[in-house]
Amino acid sequence: MNILITAGGTSEKIDNVRTITNSSTGKLGSAIALAFAETYTQPTDRIYYLCGQNAVIPEADRISIIRIGSVNDLMEKLTGILTTERIDAVIHSMAVSDYTVDTLTTKSSIASSIADFISQNGPSAALEPETLTAQLIEKAFSGTDTLGSENKISSDIEDIVIVMKKTPKVIGMIKKLQPAALLVGFKLLSNVSPETLIDTGYNLLLKNNCDLVLANDLSGINELGHRGFLISPDKTYETFETKSQIAKGIVKRVHAILNNQ
Amino acid sequence: MNILITAGGTSEKIDNVRTITNSSTGKLGSAIALAFAETYTQPTDRIYYLCGQNAVIPEADRISIIRIGSVNDLMEKLTGILTTERIDAVIHSMAVSDYTVDTLTTKSSIASSIADFISQNGPSAALEPETLTAQLIEKAFSGTDTLGSENKISSDIEDIVIVMKKTPKVIGMIKKLQPAALLVGFKLLSNVSPETLIDTGYNLLLKNNCDLVLANDLSGINELGHRGFLISPDKTYETFETKSQIAKGIVKRVHAILNNQ
Repeated sequence: MNILITAGGTSEKIDNVRTITNSSTGKLGSAIALAFAETYTQPTDRIYYLCGQNAVIPEADRISIIRIGSVNDLMEKLTGILTTERIDAVIHSMAVSDYTVDTLTTKSSIASSIADFISQNGPSAALEPETLTAQLIEKAFSGTDTLGSENKISSDIEDIVIVMKKTPKVIGMIKKLQPAALLVGFKLLSNVSPETLIDTGYNLLLKNNCDLVLANDLSGINELGHRGFLISPDKTYETFETKSQIAKGIVKRVHAILNNQ
Repeated sequence: MNILITAGGTSEKIDNVRTITNSSTGKLGSAIALAFAETYTQPTDRIYYLCGQNAVIPEADRISIIRIGSVNDLMEKLTGILTTERIDAVIHSMAVSDYTVDTLTTKSSIASSIADFISQNGPSAALEPETLTAQLIEKAFSGTDTLGSENKISSDIEDIVIVMKKTPKVIGMIKKLQPAALLVGFKLLSNVSPETLIDTGYNLLLKNNCDLVLANDLSGINELGHRGFLISPDKTYETFETKSQIAKGIVKRVHAILNNQ
């Protein structure tokens, strides 16, 4: 049996020294990796552990640690493994950034792009209600990326504006690359009701063809415990109160599903 | 003798799970702390080591580790120590973010703020060349921060724009809080000539009343070495090729200056 686990958070570069990172520690992913490695009744041959730069590392035989930087880096390494190795289950606990840096600009640059647009096209063109917003969006962010993100942003610039764009949904790639692999998705929300959490987790399961989804909320994660709901395709769920319970619960369910295939 | 060392990088929160961090590892600051701790001819009583969340930790007696989050957090903890303890030297190697998050907005929100402004004030008001840019800057970024940075940004939002603002210069506070303390400043640039690096480092020294400045360039930092120029108030400088050389060089110069006082 081969398992692929993603854990921790991705990091998107702003320039040579600054990154936007996710504060995920990788502790849950690490606990899951150890729970697979330590289940001797159903031995795991190999665990591919793809994790963020600052993530906690599980130490056990048969765990291969692969460090991940950006979302793009994650996609490349995930594709590499899923197209060359047979993987029985993918536990995708990594906090993948929804956004990456599109352009770096300044407030003044945005404003002068708009001023140029209005003076070139005349106020009446700019005031067409139907098209105004769309035109402004396009023009406001043209001619940007002049800060030289290849190097380090000068600290002399007064007003930096970071324009972000969406990243591809990594979870959606997994079953396309390896349809037979069991997929466990993760959903982390902040301060929502358990009903909303279960509904959102279940929607993730349906949308990405997951076999299980672990839904959790920041308010249920602290020094003492980690509340998680492990949702099944029939929308029933198990409730866990610690990382260790979640890890063992996922391993048990993954083994049960794989044994029934 | 009491030494205060700052090391690693600060991290500014975007929301509950996302932060803008500096990729500084704290390895140089850690080497300097150990070099002070291991110089037995001039023993150090206590080393206050203020460092970023993911920074490397120096392990030795008499080093107190104090973890730092944001620039604001650094200012509070630094002020706390410098107003209550006698510190002989401050080695300020931390990569302090020049920017913190001002507001979170979207491209659409910026564009509609501008559209509202133009329709309320008429095109002629908006087209006054003198005031246009200033007005647009103010209006484009009004009515923002609607994304709820207290929680977690929803991944459903298509276009996030992060507007940054300048942070106070922490290095400028140090001699004001404790004028008698010796101050070593640090300047990191990216891909500049040695002349530009020395000039920029020397300007930092003059501006902040530093006793020494260590100037370095990202292009001179790799697995094999770490090139650094230790600049004096007369603009002469010593050149070092490794972190260990830099650390020992700084300790030697700090001891020499303190002994001559």
